[in-house]
Amino acid sequence: MPYDDLLADIAADMRTVTDRGRVADYIPSLGSVDPARFGIALCTADGSCHVAGDADLPFSIQSISKVFALTLALGKVGDALWSRVGREPSGSAFNSIVQLEREEGIPRNPFINAGALVCTDVHLAGHSPREAIGEILRFVRGLADDNDIVVDETVARSEQEQGFRNAALANYIRSFGNLQQPVDAVLGTYFHQCAIAMSCRQLALAGRYLMLGGRSPGAGRIVTPQRARRINAIMLTCGHYDASGDFAFRVGLPGKSGVGGGILAVAPGRGSIAVWSPGLNAQGNSQLGTLALERVSAALGWSIFDPVTA
Amino acid sequence: MPYDDLLADIAADMRTVTDRGRVADYIPSLGSVDPARFGIALCTADGSCHVAGDADLPFSIQSISKVFALTLALGKVGDALWSRVGREPSGSAFNSIVQLEREEGIPRNPFINAGALVCTDVHLAGHSPREAIGEILRFVRGLADDNDIVVDETVARSEQEQGFRNAALANYIRSFGNLQQPVDAVLGTYFHQCAIAMSCRQLALAGRYLMLGGRSPGAGRIVTPQRARRINAIMLTCGHYDASGDFAFRVGLPGKSGVGGGILAVAPGRGSIAVWSPGLNAQGNSQLGTLALERVSAALGWSIFDPVTA
Amino acid sequence: MPYDDLLADIAADMRTVTDRGRVADYIPSLGSVDPARFGIALCTADGSCHVAGDADLPFSIQSISKVFALTLALGKVGDALWSRVGREPSGSAFNSIVQLEREEGIPRNPFINAGALVCTDVHLAGHSPREAIGEILRFVRGLADDNDIVVDETVARSEQEQGFRNAALANYIRSFGNLQQPVDAVLGTYFHQCAIAMSCRQLALAGRYLMLGGRSPGAGRIVTPQRARRINAIMLTCGHYDASGDFAFRVGLPGKSGVGGGILAVAPGRGSIAVWSPGLNAQGNSQLGTLALERVSAALGWSIFDPVTA
Amino acid sequence: MPYDDLLADIAADMRTVTDRGRVADYIPSLGSVDPARFGIALCTADGSCHVAGDADLPFSIQSISKVFALTLALGKVGDALWSRVGREPSGSAFNSIVQLEREEGIPRNPFINAGALVCTDVHLAGHSPREAIGEILRFVRGLADDNDIVVDETVARSEQEQGFRNAALANYIRSFGNLQQPVDAVLGTYFHQCAIAMSCRQLALAGRYLMLGGRSPGAGRIVTPQRARRINAIMLTCGHYDASGDFAFRVGLPGKSGVGGGILAVAPGRGSIAVWSPGLNAQGNSQLGTLALERVSAALGWSIFDPVTA
Repeated sequence: MPYDDLLADIAADMRTVTDRGRVADYIPSLGSVDPARFGIALCTADGSCHVAGDADLPFSIQSISKVFALTLALGKVGDALWSRVGREPSGSAFNSIVQLEREEGIPRNPFINAGALVCTDVHLAGHSPREAIGEILRFVRGLADDNDIVVDETVARSEQEQGFRNAALANYIRSFGNLQQPVDAVLGTYFHQCAIAMSCRQLALAGRYLMLGGRSPGAGRIVTPQRARRINAIMLTCGHYDASGDFAFRVGLPGKSGVGGGILAVAPGRGSIAVWSPGLNAQGNSQLGTLALERVSAALGWSIFDPVTA
Repeated sequence: MPYDDLLADIAADMRTVTDRGRVADYIPSLGSVDPARFGIALCTADGSCHVAGDADLPFSIQSISKVFALTLALGKVGDALWSRVGREPSGSAFNSIVQLEREEGIPRNPFINAGALVCTDVHLAGHSPREAIGEILRFVRGLADDNDIVVDETVARSEQEQGFRNAALANYIRSFGNLQQPVDAVLGTYFHQCAIAMSCRQLALAGRYLMLGGRSPGAGRIVTPQRARRINAIMLTCGHYDASGDFAFRVGLPGKSGVGGGILAVAPGRGSIAVWSPGLNAQGNSQLGTLALERVSAALGWSIFDPVTA
Repeated sequence: MPYDDLLADIAADMRTVTDRGRVADYIPSLGSVDPARFGIALCTADGSCHVAGDADLPFSIQSISKVFALTLALGKVGDALWSRVGREPSGSAFNSIVQLEREEGIPRNPFINAGALVCTDVHLAGHSPREAIGEILRFVRGLADDNDIVVDETVARSEQEQGFRNAALANYIRSFGNLQQPVDAVLGTYFHQCAIAMSCRQLALAGRYLMLGGRSPGAGRIVTPQRARRINAIMLTCGHYDASGDFAFRVGLPGKSGVGGGILAVAPGRGSIAVWSPGLNAQGNSQLGTLALERVSAALGWSIFDPVTA
Repeated sequence: MPYDDLLADIAADMRTVTDRGRVADYIPSLGSVDPARFGIALCTADGSCHVAGDADLPFSIQSISKVFALTLALGKVGDALWSRVGREPSGSAFNSIVQLEREEGIPRNPFINAGALVCTDVHLAGHSPREAIGEILRFVRGLADDNDIVVDETVARSEQEQGFRNAALANYIRSFGNLQQPVDAVLGTYFHQCAIAMSCRQLALAGRYLMLGGRSPGAGRIVTPQRARRINAIMLTCGHYDASGDFAFRVGLPGKSGVGGGILAVAPGRGSIAVWSPGLNAQGNSQLGTLALERVSAALGWSIFDPVTA
């Protein structure tokens, strides 16, 4: 089946699902998003791009930004990053602080909040928060080849006002000496990076470097093939918090979810896929987004756990 | 480079490594194994088999048996198994009991000891321990097409005598009602299954069904393609305890390690690889085995996180 | 008010309480106890004994036996015991296994199950389980000056059949080398010791040595004054599992509760008090028993946190 | 032996001890305190006051201030406080955040940092931080009948600069809605309250209301007898973090320690005792202070676990 038909089919089916999960409502600008929304976009290795549903509506990428923050942090300090953040699944929720106490301020991986804060701290070194946010934005715009991507300032402000849990994490990590920039600067940068708004199409475009061994069609080499592979590995084992195992089991693709309802998934050598549906499942991942990716992966035989059939 | 040369190169290099990790010594029959041993075997999708080093010496497969036990348990009760054991990385050591308390007797995944005990319990239903062990043995022999595979009774007996931690786990799970057979029968079967002795060659042969979408060359269809894919996914996220993320990061293949120093790794559609070197790293996985698999995966471009290049 | 009137008043009031907690029903012989039962007995320092309600009905003392087991273990190995068991409140439930993992098999205190198993192990050294049980029974009979105290064999058998959680604890401790006798012997002795049946009167009599600086009216010196004081201290901080703080706050006396609904409380230099009411509160301590002791302590001004008014 | 001789003896002995523990050095103004210091003061129920050693040198009372903050918070909201903070020993270190995650922002007791922050939040309601600090200071001055007691602003400022762990706790509690005032105001007040400097003499005087059933000789009724008794109970079970059991076992008196090396201990109806020696043991409590109180308690027979001998 051609990609367009597959995506259209999935979008049509998703429109009829009644159990759509629960929209995050810890801040008003997320809580007011229409749960009926569903979008999907797929960019293939040969350069085509396919969309269905609300694929051109921007949404808050939230934790999906952790993929870009990790990429930038690795670009800045290379593998030295791994002395400050682990790469193991955490076995616990996205904002858990328990593991940090036992492991003395070293977050388990860069895709839980604690680990992402360390990446932001690395990225921030030598910059003002404003510059750091500008750099992330330029990076993402370059990857997506689209200068219209912006930070949703209302979301950023709300995050900041409600961000006590992240403030706790940042102060806690700082108490172990594993943040080097001022806590407020790290938090401010982090909240803005999470508040970047992108559409499925923009996100799928931005994710192409992970499918293509580190090279982005528009922007050139972003990371080495080895680093692209490794980021994919971390997305697979850690990209969905304490539901990462289930996502691997059902979808079989590296992926990173965000509380705004988006998921970016990567089929190495084949496709970069972005889905969006604001309702979340119990683990805080997009309910229909996961379902849709399961469909895509099965229909195209793209699970990385299936025998290769290039 | 031809497979034979690659394996020979790796085996030669491994011979010279001085930091070989620490041989498990909690029972004498494991502790007396020569740390200088190293073997590797690779069976390809097109049916060839390649070996180097001590690839024909049998060793105690230990936790690698959990892959076979999971396959048998799924064969017996299907996806109903997942109400009794999870499929998430545990974020903790192989024999941790902490997670069980919080999650009320449901082990995180089938590849930690607690989860493997539940698989054994499932497999045991309606059988005597002797029959159950016989069935596992026949299963493995069929997969490897080799009737010489046996249980090392000395190892099994020692495990039983020293198995207080596993007895604790089994009783604990039983206290939540998540074991249905007598605790002693489950433990007895489990200790024997862990004490199966296999060579790298036998193990690589036995693992072929996971590379080939569920079909074993000699034994026919073992599991459906979907199930093979899913077992691979669990091996990737949970196969190396609290070093699973690191193994995915470095090697990029589904794999399962055992405290005897063996690792079985699967490159879907490409190869089934078994390595053995008795020295373990800090997380209890074969130190040289991991290194060797990293070499194989990089040399052949077989990481599942690399772009497909069939 | 004379003691008899006070106790009669309390017993009368307790008869009318409707929210009596929940009778433990994990074994049938406990579950079948009439929740309407309430008994209380008070032995004073000057040798008088006062009772009300069902004070002469025997009940299963369960964890109250841990006080006697600790006394015997200290008698056997002295302060060397403290290298094998701590004396800190655990902050967790009576049968938690989590703490044991982090603290490598050293139970937090002798009044959680894990710690009591270590005391039983100490007491068992050089004896058969039968002898050890006989010794505990003789000890308790001597303290209470009553040879009619027996083990309820039905309870002991049921405990053994359902004792998976305790078997888990014992095996777990054993795996760290902190049990020296065979696991089954320790468990068997432990289950029998918990199954001792005593009336409130017998229990209050048995507890007199703790109120009298270590000397029991009938049996002579049991422990030194320092040891009596220290056992009292542990009863205060650890005697009610994760409700020990609340018991100290409300009652203000060293006390030890059992899942059979009994509590033994000690007012040093003043009284030994036993209450029994089978319904338990959420933390597993007798609901009316706690209430009754709060009344006694307040009425007599016996809280150890009140200014001394001898 | 007269009190003066006893204290002089102890002070003399303490001067010769070589293993004095480790002075807290997380802020310079604490780290620079001379480890040779030792002071002790004892106020008796009949109104006399006895001192030895450096009993008139002011030191940073730190966590001992939690006793006064609890008293003030109870004065403000009464037993409603107990819906926001527990009264159970925590079983963990003074600044642990783990328990807070599991128990959703309700600190275990008012004597760990998290619980003290809640007390400060209660006390702060309707005040500016400056007013709240003023009120605490006036309260303590009244209790000690000494207007020279001040906040050490250097310590307060250093605490604030290094207070990442407390900032983490405060933000974390706030994320569960269990702080109502601005996080920064709570922290500012808390750091100043901890930075109050008092001598042993002043501290022993201030603690008299807890020995005297709630009435302070100079200041009149502070709390009801019931509340005094209950504060004593919490000091006994929770006053020394995860060494509270050991302090009860060895000393047998309600007490509260501070990282500045001070301990306030209460013998109800008999004495209020303050000791100071800056070196801390592994659990963060004054090493010589604990030793000295063990001596006092044993010499005077004041343990609350000993038979009453008024």
